[in-house]
Amino acid sequence: MKNTLLLILVLLSLNVCSQDFISSKVSFKDTILDENRKSPFDYVDPFIGTGGDGHTYPGAVIPFGMVQLSPDTDMKSYHESYNWCAGYQYGDSSIIGFSHTHFSGTGHSDLGDILIMPTAGKLRTKSGTKNNPDLGYRSRFSHKNETASPGYYSVKLDDYNIQAELTATNRVGFHKYTFPKTDSAHIILDLLHSIYNYDGKVIWSSIRVENDTLVTGYRQTRGWARNRSVYFAIVFSKAFDSYGFDKDDESMYGYRKTDNYIYEKPEVNGKKLIAFFNFKTKEEEIIEVKVGISAVSAEGALNNLKTEIPTWNFNKVKLVAENQWQKELSKIIIEGTDRDKAIFYTSVYHTMLAPVNYMDVDGKYRGLDQNIHTANDFTNYTIYSLWDTYRATHPLFTIIQPEKVSDMVKSMLAHYDQSVHHILPVWSFHNNETWCMIGYHAVPVIADAYLKGIRNYDVEKAYEAMISSATYENYDGLDYYMELGFVPIDKENEGASKTLEYAYDDFTIYKVAKEMGKDDDFKKFENRARNYKNIFDKETNFMRAKKIDGSWNEPFDPLYSKYGGDYTEGNAWQYTWYVPQDVQGLINLMGGREKFVEKLDSLFIVEAHDEKYHEVEDISGLIGQYAHGNEPSQHIAYLYNYAAMPWKTQQRIHQIMNNLFDDTPYGICGNEDCGQMSAWYIFSSMGFYPVCPGSNEYVIGSPCIEKATINLDNGNKFEMTADRLSEKNIYIQSVKLNGKNYDKSYITHDDIINGGKLIFRMGRKPNKKWGIKNADLPYSMTKAGAQ
Amino acid sequence: MKNTLLLILVLLSLNVCSQDFISSKVSFKDTILDENRKSPFDYVDPFIGTGGDGHTYPGAVIPFGMVQLSPDTDMKSYHESYNWCAGYQYGDSSIIGFSHTHFSGTGHSDLGDILIMPTAGKLRTKSGTKNNPDLGYRSRFSHKNETASPGYYSVKLDDYNIQAELTATNRVGFHKYTFPKTDSAHIILDLLHSIYNYDGKVIWSSIRVENDTLVTGYRQTRGWARNRSVYFAIVFSKAFDSYGFDKDDESMYGYRKTDNYIYEKPEVNGKKLIAFFNFKTKEEEIIEVKVGISAVSAEGALNNLKTEIPTWNFNKVKLVAENQWQKELSKIIIEGTDRDKAIFYTSVYHTMLAPVNYMDVDGKYRGLDQNIHTANDFTNYTIYSLWDTYRATHPLFTIIQPEKVSDMVKSMLAHYDQSVHHILPVWSFHNNETWCMIGYHAVPVIADAYLKGIRNYDVEKAYEAMISSATYENYDGLDYYMELGFVPIDKENEGASKTLEYAYDDFTIYKVAKEMGKDDDFKKFENRARNYKNIFDKETNFMRAKKIDGSWNEPFDPLYSKYGGDYTEGNAWQYTWYVPQDVQGLINLMGGREKFVEKLDSLFIVEAHDEKYHEVEDISGLIGQYAHGNEPSQHIAYLYNYAAMPWKTQQRIHQIMNNLFDDTPYGICGNEDCGQMSAWYIFSSMGFYPVCPGSNEYVIGSPCIEKATINLDNGNKFEMTADRLSEKNIYIQSVKLNGKNYDKSYITHDDIINGGKLIFRMGRKPNKKWGIKNADLPYSMTKAGAQ
Repeated sequence: MKNTLLLILVLLSLNVCSQDFISSKVSFKDTILDENRKSPFDYVDPFIGTGGDGHTYPGAVIPFGMVQLSPDTDMKSYHESYNWCAGYQYGDSSIIGFSHTHFSGTGHSDLGDILIMPTAGKLRTKSGTKNNPDLGYRSRFSHKNETASPGYYSVKLDDYNIQAELTATNRVGFHKYTFPKTDSAHIILDLLHSIYNYDGKVIWSSIRVENDTLVTGYRQTRGWARNRSVYFAIVFSKAFDSYGFDKDDESMYGYRKTDNYIYEKPEVNGKKLIAFFNFKTKEEEIIEVKVGISAVSAEGALNNLKTEIPTWNFNKVKLVAENQWQKELSKIIIEGTDRDKAIFYTSVYHTMLAPVNYMDVDGKYRGLDQNIHTANDFTNYTIYSLWDTYRATHPLFTIIQPEKVSDMVKSMLAHYDQSVHHILPVWSFHNNETWCMIGYHAVPVIADAYLKGIRNYDVEKAYEAMISSATYENYDGLDYYMELGFVPIDKENEGASKTLEYAYDDFTIYKVAKEMGKDDDFKKFENRARNYKNIFDKETNFMRAKKIDGSWNEPFDPLYSKYGGDYTEGNAWQYTWYVPQDVQGLINLMGGREKFVEKLDSLFIVEAHDEKYHEVEDISGLIGQYAHGNEPSQHIAYLYNYAAMPWKTQQRIHQIMNNLFDDTPYGICGNEDCGQMSAWYIFSSMGFYPVCPGSNEYVIGSPCIEKATINLDNGNKFEMTADRLSEKNIYIQSVKLNGKNYDKSYITHDDIINGGKLIFRMGRKPNKKWGIKNADLPYSMTKAGAQ
Repeated sequence: MKNTLLLILVLLSLNVCSQDFISSKVSFKDTILDENRKSPFDYVDPFIGTGGDGHTYPGAVIPFGMVQLSPDTDMKSYHESYNWCAGYQYGDSSIIGFSHTHFSGTGHSDLGDILIMPTAGKLRTKSGTKNNPDLGYRSRFSHKNETASPGYYSVKLDDYNIQAELTATNRVGFHKYTFPKTDSAHIILDLLHSIYNYDGKVIWSSIRVENDTLVTGYRQTRGWARNRSVYFAIVFSKAFDSYGFDKDDESMYGYRKTDNYIYEKPEVNGKKLIAFFNFKTKEEEIIEVKVGISAVSAEGALNNLKTEIPTWNFNKVKLVAENQWQKELSKIIIEGTDRDKAIFYTSVYHTMLAPVNYMDVDGKYRGLDQNIHTANDFTNYTIYSLWDTYRATHPLFTIIQPEKVSDMVKSMLAHYDQSVHHILPVWSFHNNETWCMIGYHAVPVIADAYLKGIRNYDVEKAYEAMISSATYENYDGLDYYMELGFVPIDKENEGASKTLEYAYDDFTIYKVAKEMGKDDDFKKFENRARNYKNIFDKETNFMRAKKIDGSWNEPFDPLYSKYGGDYTEGNAWQYTWYVPQDVQGLINLMGGREKFVEKLDSLFIVEAHDEKYHEVEDISGLIGQYAHGNEPSQHIAYLYNYAAMPWKTQQRIHQIMNNLFDDTPYGICGNEDCGQMSAWYIFSSMGFYPVCPGSNEYVIGSPCIEKATINLDNGNKFEMTADRLSEKNIYIQSVKLNGKNYDKSYITHDDIINGGKLIFRMGRKPNKKWGIKNADLPYSMTKAGAQ
């Protein structure tokens, strides 16, 4: 779908009924198409990030959709599956099938629910191996026969000469398979298939063949999520001639068995259910399959299916999906090179693949307490990769998705209500808390929204939930933290990182408490926000893990990292900078700006010693010790601003942009992480970044695109222009905001939301005088100049 | 609770609010108390049947209640658990704890959900063994410290000096534990415990410690039912000081562990969850525990709990339960010996332990399709041991529970609606079909109700469901049966029994079809009802298994039985008589009355060869080859009536009554089978029995009690009097019905329902002239005298 004009014409001729579609405010022709007559949509390449450590998937999905229908190329065991977190790796040459749920960009995984695969010829009910696809039903494919665009994916399955096309609505995956002429066409339904697979992951599953076009059931897994069920309803466009099951099923009761299969058994329960449905097809005969999913019940899944896709019109569903993307992708329009646009718009695309809708069309959803709840006044969202996304993804949403921000807060408050711990989500998805990563970073997400004036939820309850999360003694050493002011490493692993991140989270409570007039709390949390100081070692000039007796953890090697060590997916070099709330305080600890900058320079230079953290897969995208591929580093390049040397930030930003992003499948240097890496790119390419959510500031870096226009929901526009930007003109010479010279090295949220024009004048040499006065530096708890 | 007068006084003084209780129409003082000033309630002994093969349980339950709260004494593996189908064996000397769901009298099992056990002293989280109770938390007990009455159970747990008392409402178990003084009182919650236990039976379970008095969760099992979840909510009357879990739990995430346990972890998921709650108690301190259960959700369980038992008043709940029993037990009032009354009223009690309620207080229940449904206009029941209970239990319900009969039919029609097979239940419980036993015996249950005029349900749908069940090709050789007129043993096991039972079931459809004017169907099913003839072997004079080529299965031994052989839990001797719809046809096949009676006499004489069916545990209660302990024999003693020799029936009935029933724990000679054995006793002791449900007739045997008054819901009374009955006066001399001499050897359903008086005059010698004219014989499809 590369020709948008054609798309529009087709759309107009189809009388598509979706309200989303009809009510679209964007006039494609006038607003979206660029000089190449291409829209943002046309530049999105879902393959970006599908190679290497990006962990994105190329499949079909709508913005924030419950269904992520995508090909899986491998199903690795628990300990080997890092590379296949999204089910797909660009380097693979065979496809197992198409499953309906995926994480975008994560470094831990699960999902891959309800895999469907069309085959022809000899029936195979095991998936086979990458080395020998012929052992199973998987098929070879090549990228030349594979296309992907927002809401659509297509591939030719070479082993079977079947063309597979996918599209989706919110809760329904739509498969279109074009078969060759054959007496033995099959559609496989594999409920054993799973991302992050291991023996025993499927707790139980059930298939009911309701009639010769409708199949329902569920599967329940104990993966990363320990208590997760996906119910499904599958409708075929053509009645199957016969059906059966792989005999390895632990079945409920025995029917007559023939050869290796069990036939015509309309209800099976087991842990290894793999079903097949047989057809005869004519040359180029199309069989379509709609798969509704639900966390509530099979009834809910069928209701979702019938409501969202009542008819058989693949193209119409695809066009509705594409239009939803057009609308979302038009929220920021940029000018720049084709490469810029590909990376930028794909980044925007990637920020809208999580959180995802998690409720049925009737508003019912399964809560963290496993009970069925109804979301009466909000859209319930799930997949909160908060350790990643509180940094830039959620702040981006405050700009381009303000309505969804309130719903996300409401979803997190529902989680809080349903939590037996009475705390906000940590890393949650599909009504499960995984307890993955550290911190209580739902707190800065809510605080950031609140402080920016997004308050369409129960603010008192939100406040209560933040306090409750920050004071839950049983959580990850919080009891010690509250008593001692740091998390002692001999009592709780990763104590150094936890201390730093708690202190930042506490800062955001301090800001909210102050705003809300909670006098007692704000002082308490203001103090807690300075707890980072308790683990700064003046001798080594690093943040370090401290023991309960106050001594440092030994031996100490600032390069060393391991899971469960002193730091979280990082080392002392990377974590020492984690004081976004008080960079000036850190500068002071380090002995002033000069020493701070010297050390910061070193970060980008100290040689990487891969063997020092070879176990920590997440540390990637290295420049010296700076690891752009993982979150703890992602704010660091902006810290020069605080030391009044913004030109060094400008230089580093361009270095990162040029070296660690490209528009190929391998173009994301580390886990995309549910939009965080992309949000970093979106902000940074526009020239500013939310170093410290909760401060309402965006620290100015250096723009990497010529122009960006943010079309705000309130009708305002915020335009960024980078005059004279070129490969060499990477340094800010001067800035104008709304026509006036602007010397601060940050802008505020209001500056954006109120609309306006931000003009950077770029040049080849640094302007070392811009943005360096104390009054012009970004926010720190400690005032610049003070000790 | 042996003093009913006291009970009544206490009830009156308590102002019990239950509507059931207040609205009771029975005036205890006038109607119920006998010359001993005892009511039916006082004669019930729940221990009858708890020893040997009876498989009843002694615990606390209300009539048809969802909760069956009872002690479990053993938890055997799948293959060894026959004796512990109800969780309890009278011969055992230690109790594991008290679980909330039990089958009454079955020969296959499951359940034993949500076990609670109070202990004191050293904490143990494994249950221990019968040989060495000290290895676990189980406790020794003795029967002298154990009491049971309807709705109440009490036992002293000797190892801990704890008095445990139990009572129940429909959906809530109420535990009252009186502790000694101790610093280490514990209440164990064992979700691993299960009846019919085996490794892997618990699929998944979850415990949430909501606060220090409320615990919720669920457990999901794949036992006999392959897809079953029980949700629970547990409320303690006193806050526990601490809590924890056995460390063998496969837990969701790790907290600090101390010694062998995991403490203070408010949410765990796993397959082996055993929790403990710790208390300090004073001497004789009472801790009460309420446990609500639900098949829908933990929320539903809590709602059930709060609705049914909002306060802490154990005695009140117990009294309400007892009153419900008083009401039900007063439906038939008898005169006779204390022994007669103990057996009779306990039998009535046992007929009301299944089916059981299966929906929450808000009407929601989990259906066979695993979806949540709402029973808007009926009470949903589960536990349908239909192969057993279609014979006499359900016919008894048509007399004393007509309202519940309609609800049971509606429940079975809901099952039909939710069945992917589109058939009625076979052996179903807790939204699962077990496919246990043979036949489609929901059909005669519905047919019997319909033909008796109980039609408060969608009769057209009921008819459709009956036809659908009788024509479902994939079920147990029905395809062959429909084609060949018998089930060929080389294609389907137990083909002889299946042919016979299908033919009987078909007879009931024939009767309904005729009544409804379904002309085509009635002829078809009339023909099918005669299919029994296809497997009668004139040479051996036995019903035999036939092969698809028409030859008999060889070798043939009429004594031999094995599971999955030619017959179902029986041999040729036992199954040959299974033609209740056409006994005259069988007489004809056998060559006339003389040969028939000769063979029938032999049945009771041929020596039992235990080694011929030692594997078939269900064959028990033997008189010759007659096995009263299992259902295939239970109509046979009545068949002499059809051969015009009713005095032989009279003799056999008294022989069976006197030899195979008593009022001790070992008083039931075979599986009580969800009321079937008891219904046999109730009918037979009153002098008549429904040999052929669907005929609307009850064949007269010989009364064994002096008088019985059935208090019908329509206000009528039906009185049976056995004049001159004594140990030796077992033969009917003459009969009067409503004052007129009565020579028929059966009565009709209308005779009972219209009210009236049936007077038997008994004597020492048979009156061989009574009940022998062809016109006076019970119904057969083939007319007496015809060939």
